[in-house]
This record gives sequence, C-alpha cells and structure tokens, in this order.
Amino acid sequence: MPISHSTINKNSKAPKPMCYSSIFFYSCLLLLSLSSAAASASIFSGNGTENAENRSDLFSEILRDEAVERLYELGKVSDASGYLERTFFSPASLRAINLIRRWMEDAGLNTWVDQMGNVHGQVEGSIANAEALLIGSHLDTVVDAGMFDGSLGIISAISALKVLYINGKLGKLKRPVEVIAFSDEEGVRFQTTFLGSASVAGILPITAMQISDKRGVTIEDILKENSLEITEGTLLQLKYDPRSVWGYVEVHIEQGPVLERIGFPLGVVKGIAGQTRLKVKVRGSQGHAGTVPMSMRQDPMAAAAELIVLLESLCKHPEEHLSYDGHCSSFNVKSLASSLVCTVGEISTWPSASNVIPGEVTYTVDIRAIDDSGREAVIYELSNRMYQICESRSVSCIIERKHDAGSVVCDPELSTQLKSAAYSAFKRMVGEIHDEVPMLMSGAGHDAMAMSRLTKVGMLFVRCRGGISHSPEEHVLDDDVWAAGLAILSFLESFL
Amino acid sequence: MPISHSTINKNSKAPKPMCYSSIFFYSCLLLLSLSSAAASASIFSGNGTENAENRSDLFSEILRDEAVERLYELGKVSDASGYLERTFFSPASLRAINLIRRWMEDAGLNTWVDQMGNVHGQVEGSIANAEALLIGSHLDTVVDAGMFDGSLGIISAISALKVLYINGKLGKLKRPVEVIAFSDEEGVRFQTTFLGSASVAGILPITAMQISDKRGVTIEDILKENSLEITEGTLLQLKYDPRSVWGYVEVHIEQGPVLERIGFPLGVVKGIAGQTRLKVKVRGSQGHAGTVPMSMRQDPMAAAAELIVLLESLCKHPEEHLSYDGHCSSFNVKSLASSLVCTVGEISTWPSASNVIPGEVTYTVDIRAIDDSGREAVIYELSNRMYQICESRSVSCIIERKHDAGSVVCDPELSTQLKSAAYSAFKRMVGEIHDEVPMLMSGAGHDAMAMSRLTKVGMLFVRCRGGISHSPEEHVLDDDVWAAGLAILSFLESFL
Repeated sequence: MPISHSTINKNSKAPKPMCYSSIFFYSCLLLLSLSSAAASASIFSGNGTENAENRSDLFSEILRDEAVERLYELGKVSDASGYLERTFFSPASLRAINLIRRWMEDAGLNTWVDQMGNVHGQVEGSIANAEALLIGSHLDTVVDAGMFDGSLGIISAISALKVLYINGKLGKLKRPVEVIAFSDEEGVRFQTTFLGSASVAGILPITAMQISDKRGVTIEDILKENSLEITEGTLLQLKYDPRSVWGYVEVHIEQGPVLERIGFPLGVVKGIAGQTRLKVKVRGSQGHAGTVPMSMRQDPMAAAAELIVLLESLCKHPEEHLSYDGHCSSFNVKSLASSLVCTVGEISTWPSASNVIPGEVTYTVDIRAIDDSGREAVIYELSNRMYQICESRSVSCIIERKHDAGSVVCDPELSTQLKSAAYSAFKRMVGEIHDEVPMLMSGAGHDAMAMSRLTKVGMLFVRCRGGISHSPEEHVLDDDVWAAGLAILSFLESFL
Repeated sequence: MPISHSTINKNSKAPKPMCYSSIFFYSCLLLLSLSSAAASASIFSGNGTENAENRSDLFSEILRDEAVERLYELGKVSDASGYLERTFFSPASLRAINLIRRWMEDAGLNTWVDQMGNVHGQVEGSIANAEALLIGSHLDTVVDAGMFDGSLGIISAISALKVLYINGKLGKLKRPVEVIAFSDEEGVRFQTTFLGSASVAGILPITAMQISDKRGVTIEDILKENSLEITEGTLLQLKYDPRSVWGYVEVHIEQGPVLERIGFPLGVVKGIAGQTRLKVKVRGSQGHAGTVPMSMRQDPMAAAAELIVLLESLCKHPEEHLSYDGHCSSFNVKSLASSLVCTVGEISTWPSASNVIPGEVTYTVDIRAIDDSGREAVIYELSNRMYQICESRSVSCIIERKHDAGSVVCDPELSTQLKSAAYSAFKRMVGEIHDEVPMLMSGAGHDAMAMSRLTKVGMLFVRCRGGISHSPEEHVLDDDVWAAGLAILSFLESFL
C-alpha cells in the first residue's frame, strides 16, 4: 500500500468530519459511550471520577472512551499476526498513517504526510504569523509491543483538539497548532532512532538514507518503493524553520514505575537523560573447567561478575565512589545519584560450554543520567576501576563506547505550564487536590530529544501499570488516558 | 562404511606384520626416522635427549617418530573438512576403527571390534588364566578437536606393545594384555559420555540405546544401520568378568597447565574429581533500562554477578567460607582447597537487549573436587548463601542439579607402579633425575571413571602445551609422546 505523491500534499483539504456539527453528534457520543471498555476503578483520592464523568465539561466520551477505543484500534494495526509490530514504512505503518490521518481530519485538522512518513494535522492560529505549537509522538512500535507507547501521545492530542473542534473553539486558538505522528522513534528496522522527528528538526543527515536493514534494503530503497525520493534538497524542506515554531509538547507513557508508586496519573518531565552505551569485552585464558586450578585461572567470567558488581555499586551510590578532585562537585554527585541508572542487558561467553572456562566474555552497559558531566564522571571512574580489576586478575579489558547522547533539559516555563494544565485537569476531574503534580526525569529517549534541537520542549508522562512497556503487558488505565487528554485540553485552552 | 558382522570376530587372525622380523626391519625404521617431524627441543634438565635417541633401547623410531606420525594420520580422519570431528559411529569413526585395528595387528595383537564400536587388540599371557591388564583410551573427539585427546592413549599403548613384538617379547608377557580404543567418551552426538567404556565395564543400561541425537536418531538406530543389534543379552556379553581383569591403565593428555608449570612431561593421576553441574536461574523484574530507578530494581543480572563473585571466592578459599559444624572437618576443607574448581561457562539474559533490565538470567555452574563430601559441603554452603543473596535482592533463585558424578580414586599400588615406570622411562631417556614424578588429580572425566566400576585403575598424564585441549591448538611435544610410550613400555616390562 504505497503512499502516492498525491497524498503528500500539505495543502490538501480535510474531508468534512462525519459526526460533528450535526444532528448525529449526540448519537455518535452515545455510541462511543456504549462501546467503550468497562469503567476502570477510581484513580484519585478525593471525590473519585464517578460524578465527574457525567459532567459535560470533562468530555469523557471523547477524551476517555473514544481515545481508548482508538488506542485499541491502532494497537491492532500490526505487521505480525498475534502481536503488535509496526516499523518504519511497513505495510502496517502505511495503514496506521491513513488511520491517524482520518482521525486528524475528524478533529477538523488539515492533514498531510511528508516524505519521511510523518503524519501532520494542523489548524491555523487566529493571530497572523504566530509561532506554532507542535504536539507529537511516534506511530512506530517495537516488536511484540504494547499499544500505548507512542500512540497515546498522538491520540490524546487529536482527542483534545477534537473537543475544541466540537465546541467550535478550534479556530479561536491564537497560535497554529499541529499534531505530528512521527514515523520512526523506536528504530527497530534500521537500528536508528528519530528518523521522523530528526527530519522535522532538521538534524537528519542525507547519509542516513543509505542505512540498510538486515536484508540489505536501505531507507532510500524503501522510500523509492513508496514513490518517494529524498535528496538533500527535499530533506532540507522537511526541516521546520525554528522562527515559525513556539515549542514542542509530547505526551508519553512513563515506561517506569515512579508515577504508580507515587499514586499520580500524570507527571511533568524535567528532562531526558543522556545516555552512553558501552560494550565491554573481557579476555582471559580459555581452559577445561576441570583441569585448571583456581589459582592458575585468568577467568574472564569471574572478572566480568566483579565488574558488574562494581557497576551496580557505583551507580547506586556514586557519592561513595566518585572522587572530588575536579571532575565533579559534591553538589553534582548528589543530583547525579537521583537520576543515574546503569544496566547490563546482554552478556555472553565464548565458547559458551558449561565445562569450559570462557576465553572471552562480552557484555553491554547502558548508563543514563540527567547530568551529562556526572555521566562522564561515572564513565571515567568506572573505566579506571575496571582496568584496575582486570589488571589484578591478569585478564584484558576492552571498553568500547558504542553510543552517546547528551541529556535534554525541558523548558522550565513550558514545564510549569504543563504542570498547571495537569493540575487543572485533575481538579476538573476530582475536585480539590492537595498534592503537587510530580516532576520526574525521563530515562528513555523520546522524539522530544530530536525536537529539542529545533525548539523548546516539554513532556507529560502518563502512569503505566507496573512501569512495564515494550511488552503486550503495557497498560494505561482508561481514566489515565482521560487525564492525559484533559491535561492537553487544559494546556490548549491557555492558547484561546 | 558400515562394519559388517564378519569384522566383529574376537577370534579373527591378525595379518602378518609387514615390516618386522625381516630384512626390511631396519629400512622401515630408517624410513620412519626420516619422515618424522623435526626433532623437538630437549625437555629435560640433565643430559638431554640428543644422545638418547640414538640408543637402541629407547626405540625413538617407534615410540616417538612413528607414534607422532600416527597421531597426525589419525588426526586427519575427520567427518568435517578443515577441522577434526569424529563422533560415535560416524563415517570418520568407522575409518578410525579400521586404522587403529590395522595398527594393533601391526603390533602382533589379535583384534576385534565389539557391538558398541570399541576396537580391541589383545595378546594372551604366558601364565594360564592370569587376569588381564587392560590399557585404553577413546577414539572419538569433540568438534574442532585436537589430535592428542584420546588418540595419544591408544597409540602410545600400541607402540609400546609393538616394541615388545619387534623384540620377540610380546609372547613372554605373563598376563594377557589388551588395548581397547573406546568408541565414545566425549559424548558429542548423543550428549552422553562413556558409551564405549561403560559397556565394557557393564554399567551401560539397555535404556541408553533409546537416547537420540539432535535429528531424533537413536543409538539403536545407528547400530542397526551398521548391522549391529544390541539386546539386553548382547549388552551383557560385552561386560568383562571382573575376575578376569587385573587392572586398567590409561594414558591421556593432562588438559591442564600443571605439568607444564612444573616442567615434567608425565605425571601420575591420584584420582579423578567428582563433578556436579548446576543450572542457576535468577528471576527479577524486567524493565526499561532508562526508567527504573536503581533503588526500585530487582535486577537478576546484578544478582547473578554477586552470586558468581561468591562462587569464585568460595571455591578459591573454601576454608574461609565453610562452617565446621559437622558437614566437613578442617582436614577435609584443607584437602578440598587443593582440588576444588568451579566454573561458570555459559550465561544468558532474557530478553537480552542492551536497553532492557533482564527479567531472567540463567547460568551454569560446574563444580569439581576429588573429595565427594567436600563437594557436597561446598554445594550446601553455596546454595544457602545464594538463596540469602537472592532474598536480600528480592529476586528469585532456582538452583537445579543437572548432573552428578562421584570421584574416582586411582589404585595406590597401581599408581606407584606407574610412577616407577615413568621414573624409569625418564631415567632411560636423560640419565639421572633428582625430582619426583608429580602426582596430580584429574579434573576432567576419563574412560578410567567407567572402568573403575570394573577393576582398579591407574592413569598417566602427559604434558600438553598451555594446558589447552578440545582445540586445534592442543599440542604435545614429540619427545613427550616418546616419554609416554616409554613409560608404558617400562610398565609392560614389569609383566615379563
């Protein structure tokens, strides 16, 4: 199902919405209400949501019931049977593009799909030449994915705009508002990330078109298959002019357990952690498990175990490990401890037989922190200590830096506005609340990272069950989907 | 190349040796001498072997040059092209059987191949009904094997008997002597060990015939393919009567680094370590590497690393870890420390992605010690400490015992005789020596383990370069091959 050139037309007219501004409006809402999932348990302390959902200013039919229904519908658009998988320009992605575009049009937005497969839905602002507010997230998924990662950000933004459209307020927004469903954030097929948002932010190099998937098909090939041609010139055209953009906002599931522990459906993101990926190779002396005395061994597995114990200890308590001789201040170390996370996700031995002392052990290290200089200090200290351990064990250590990404600090003012919007949404739903909207960091990368190169960014996190993501177990309560939509609606209302 | 029934005939006559007892004898020796590999460096302190190799009582042409030539020849008999692989009843194994049988006949032995593919070469003793001395090792190999593991024990025994044959002394041996080339010790194809020696020792159950390889072919199937049928009755017939056997001797490469470190070509084995294989599964809470704070993690990889560090520490210094409350005495702990070896050879994470905190880590533990009760004490202490660590980390630990084999103590008297034989061989080669022949333990399993269930056993270890085995890098110096043959010859001479 290739996208033809004719569909990629920024100026194409949105088809007339099917339900709204007509006699069918209320019957449509009723239908949505009936077909929605069973009401989920109350998620707030206070008055609960039972009374709230009957209040017409809360738009539960659109912001909760229809949004949840759309999440399920999009969650079924998959390249695999039996599980969810949707990668850059795959057949399911093309179906998803059309579906999202239809929902955008249904919210009264002008839509187009650009040459990198990003879906745009836009409404002009009432003030001429005002900078645009962009709201987005990604439409691609990992393999065997959950249905909220990415999709929730797209659908909640469309739903919020749809409420304005229904109420006749869409045209009253002072700024242009544009929802963008980015085509690639997970990077499953091409082992890339942000192909979509990086092209909009203007940081995607033309050389990226030559990246190939496992079968040797390049990004250029797949675009050609869809009758799309990207040259340096067309790629440049995708880049938004920073002067035309006011800011970027993204709603995303937390993918972590913090909001659930705190007991809040939404949180505001302070920043996105920087990240370093290391590949560690420990080489020792391979031998028969039965014949080499313990004292004669140069066992890379035992060495790797000691190195991993060190990693965990250093990342749990950096203040106990980092020296204060210049490369970090005591203040930095304290703030570092609150965001530093380190993970060994993959490990393997060679030759991998139970009765052979390995000759080589390879493992990955993922280090993230909100503070880039703190992360560098951790890597510096860790590497030094690792080399010492390897030397004392007469094994060799090769530490390879595979990937580095700097942290992104969310715009404080925009974050304050999102915090107010989230607070106001809660208040609308449950009445008085006494707790503050939590501020948290994002350990995961998001399109907001790429967009931060174009404009100021802000993010809202939505609580997800058990902090689980990248799994069919991923789940967001219906009422939390509602809270997210209502918060975006509140935020948009500040532009009326 | 199936073995026909006609070839499996205990009473078949050996063909007349081609070279010896004839005018061709010395020219054959000369030819062997010329075709042998370049003389290797002197391996003993003292007079060196340069003078020794010209002495006619040292038989360097047979015990070194021809033996090395045969090791290379057998090392080329492989099922794979480019590397050595010879598994139970594979085409290459059948070619090896025929080759070994020819060499046995060339040494004046009566030969036959039994229903389990073991090759026998026997000479009657001069005393009627004397118990037989068995000397053996295995003809199968691992995948990408070295050419000394197994083959050296077969070839050095045949060479030593050939020297007696040439000198007209073969018929003067008081006891029957039988060389057995066992068909399966490595157990590569059927994930078994000792199919050959266990059948001779009478400990192979008939149920073993139903074990299948990766393609579902059973041992029974493969025997049938070779026109061999094993029933409970025929299996019982393969078992030797313990009353007819005096003892079993095996020459084998050390597969460890001890002899090389000590600087001796041969050592006498005190015993073969008992072994336990564990499979450890650590289950934690899978999550996104960026979003779960360190303090909230239940990371099975960090837990596994701590468990492996504990394992190494416990096995290096059992005296510091084992409690003395009944399950082991202080004496045991000290002797345990000298033989205890522990290895983690395989490890894997699930789902194995660099940016995912694993949900599960699985690894193997191989524990060996000469002292069975000491090994049990280590496993008891280790398991207790592992469960404590897992509990404190809120991860679950499953320790599965996959395999257990008791240790085998070599017969002290037979070991003393082998020690004298090795000493006498050294003396013949280099003149006076002042050091004792080293006594060492075997951490690897050998056919002698199965044969110990039939009779007393003794083993000679031969130094191998870097302690490396199960690798094409496996190497034994030509002079060490010679020393092994000469030691077996000296041992056999004690039966004249």
